[in-house]
Amino acid sequence: MSMIQMFEKPLGMRDTFPAIYEKLENVRKTGRNYLRAHGYEFIKTPTVEYYDTIGKASAIYDASLFKLVDSQGNTLVLRPDMTTPIARVATSKLLKEKIPLRLAYFANVFRAQETEGGRPAEFDQMGIELIGDASVYADAEVILTAAGLMKEFSVPSFKLTIGHAGILQSILNSYTDTDAQAEELRILLVQKNFVGFEEAVLAFELPTMKTQSLLQFIEEASNFLSLSQIEKYVTKNDALLYMKELEVLLTEAGLTDEIAFDFTLASHMNYYTGMLFEVFAAGSGFPIGNGGRYDGLLHSFGQTVGATGFGLRVDRLLEVLPKEFEQESATLVLFEQGAYTKALTKANALRAQGQRVTLQAKASLTNEAAFTAGFSEVVVVGQED
Amino acid sequence: MSMIQMFEKPLGMRDTFPAIYEKLENVRKTGRNYLRAHGYEFIKTPTVEYYDTIGKASAIYDASLFKLVDSQGNTLVLRPDMTTPIARVATSKLLKEKIPLRLAYFANVFRAQETEGGRPAEFDQMGIELIGDASVYADAEVILTAAGLMKEFSVPSFKLTIGHAGILQSILNSYTDTDAQAEELRILLVQKNFVGFEEAVLAFELPTMKTQSLLQFIEEASNFLSLSQIEKYVTKNDALLYMKELEVLLTEAGLTDEIAFDFTLASHMNYYTGMLFEVFAAGSGFPIGNGGRYDGLLHSFGQTVGATGFGLRVDRLLEVLPKEFEQESATLVLFEQGAYTKALTKANALRAQGQRVTLQAKASLTNEAAFTAGFSEVVVVGQED
Repeated sequence: MSMIQMFEKPLGMRDTFPAIYEKLENVRKTGRNYLRAHGYEFIKTPTVEYYDTIGKASAIYDASLFKLVDSQGNTLVLRPDMTTPIARVATSKLLKEKIPLRLAYFANVFRAQETEGGRPAEFDQMGIELIGDASVYADAEVILTAAGLMKEFSVPSFKLTIGHAGILQSILNSYTDTDAQAEELRILLVQKNFVGFEEAVLAFELPTMKTQSLLQFIEEASNFLSLSQIEKYVTKNDALLYMKELEVLLTEAGLTDEIAFDFTLASHMNYYTGMLFEVFAAGSGFPIGNGGRYDGLLHSFGQTVGATGFGLRVDRLLEVLPKEFEQESATLVLFEQGAYTKALTKANALRAQGQRVTLQAKASLTNEAAFTAGFSEVVVVGQED
Repeated sequence: MSMIQMFEKPLGMRDTFPAIYEKLENVRKTGRNYLRAHGYEFIKTPTVEYYDTIGKASAIYDASLFKLVDSQGNTLVLRPDMTTPIARVATSKLLKEKIPLRLAYFANVFRAQETEGGRPAEFDQMGIELIGDASVYADAEVILTAAGLMKEFSVPSFKLTIGHAGILQSILNSYTDTDAQAEELRILLVQKNFVGFEEAVLAFELPTMKTQSLLQFIEEASNFLSLSQIEKYVTKNDALLYMKELEVLLTEAGLTDEIAFDFTLASHMNYYTGMLFEVFAAGSGFPIGNGGRYDGLLHSFGQTVGATGFGLRVDRLLEVLPKEFEQESATLVLFEQGAYTKALTKANALRAQGQRVTLQAKASLTNEAAFTAGFSEVVVVGQED
């Protein structure tokens, strides 16, 4: 193995150096305080889970899973998200104690990379799950909490786009001729492939009125400022009434400028059947977070309760936060031969005042100028002082 | 897959529920503040590393490594410790900027389990590495920091036992006849198998004076209160002078009651050549932490600088901390039909005062008594209030 190889990391794996670590830590602390103030309790789950339990049920494509095999021959995965592990914990234990459950997490998740494309194979997610409340208030709470977090982080400009998996499905079913066509269009929307959607619609050779409806839908439906704009595409139904109730609650809570409706939002997992949303911020081309109602997942764990939640991508959040943090001051106490005890006493006195103090033997420095450069104050303690 | 299997976790993998999570978070915060106050900077490294880079160089036995294979056919490992990844980061980048480096971490590490024996396969470590300072001051700093942390965590009763890999080696070499015998004894000490040590010594059929010396050594050397007690076994050499200097520094710093010398301490990794230590606390049969000088590891990464550090096992630390933490108060705002906005305003007002507040629709509760039981205060908001 050459020296270069010796220092390599696996595809998509990254080190986090002190400056970014502190920024990350600020986000972690701010988010934790905010979520705990809103009644959420933090939990942790193992990094490694059984593929049969978590990998298969997860919303992540199989090819993106990090798989390994244990000594008994079971296939394990590095957790690809937190929603599925939390569904496991809630259904196996916590829901027996309290309903609804409000759980929060700050955790690293994993996505295997096949080529070096700059995408991380490991990144932090912060999020919540509200389990056991099927009401519109739960969905409103989750959206308000996502927006509240973005404000708490001082993200300069953000937007939440809200859709509904059921409403989208009924539109796709209404204006196509077969379930296969509807499913093909849905998958193109999961991929946000709008050009592909239009091409597919034309290729289907549907009746003109259906074609026109779908093309107009794809043109308009990703940017409705008011919910009423979707009404021309769908029969009044429970889902639409639900979304109207949600809009009223969000308006009453003062969240209007930061939301828009996007009925093209789709998830490739069929356990998302209700409201869905994505969080965008100026400065990032990708969603910073996403969430929605996923009652279907808990059904697959044998529970009939409803669940809703969201997760933020902390790496993307860091990119839209102000670049510069205030550099924290740090003091260096440099001691000469024989002055150790005096210097230690000095350093501990400064620490007791709340200062960050490095205590260093002068004789150990090979490049004193380079070493002292990083400190806001340098105190030299000699034997004679 | 049955329901039972569905909820299973891999061998040695655990969930962390809210009460323990908060205790863990307190340890994390306290430790972070303490280490940062002492001039240490936190970093993170990836969970997954190349086996060739990290797995082989690590101090962990190969059978305990979680291995996986990437799409290119490379063998990867879940990091088994943080010392080796930090050596990689330091030698590839950070040492070019600053010498000495003071780095800290709070990270999960992994040890594969073959059978369910109650040992965790994933646990948190908190520790420091002081890299690029070969002086005795660096070793003193590391020991003082470990002891300082134990005090900061209010661990009721703890002890640091300090040894020296070089001194042990010279004793084993002096009183055996072959290198193979010395190595056999060293490995028994790594395993803390003192009975096996005595049996091996007798089986060697050494000259009586050597046998007696080794038996007396194993009897005494794990509990020297003063360094001078080792002098009868070894010729005065640099290592002994070094340890005397270290003892003086620790005494000057006021660390006397909490330390003892244990020259039977051994590590199975040959890159530990100098001072070694372990941290014990009343209430745990296992060391809570360990550390020492590992100059050899950086040599294997192509650097000639010295390095010293320690890591604490956070799970074992939690076991020796006071069992009960003060339960934080939490308020429940329960709202009736039509009172959402009023209740939201009330909840946000209480949050602004620093309270933790859960906002909940009364209609969603299936068991109101069970749900409200966990709160220190319950406020019901109706339409008429």
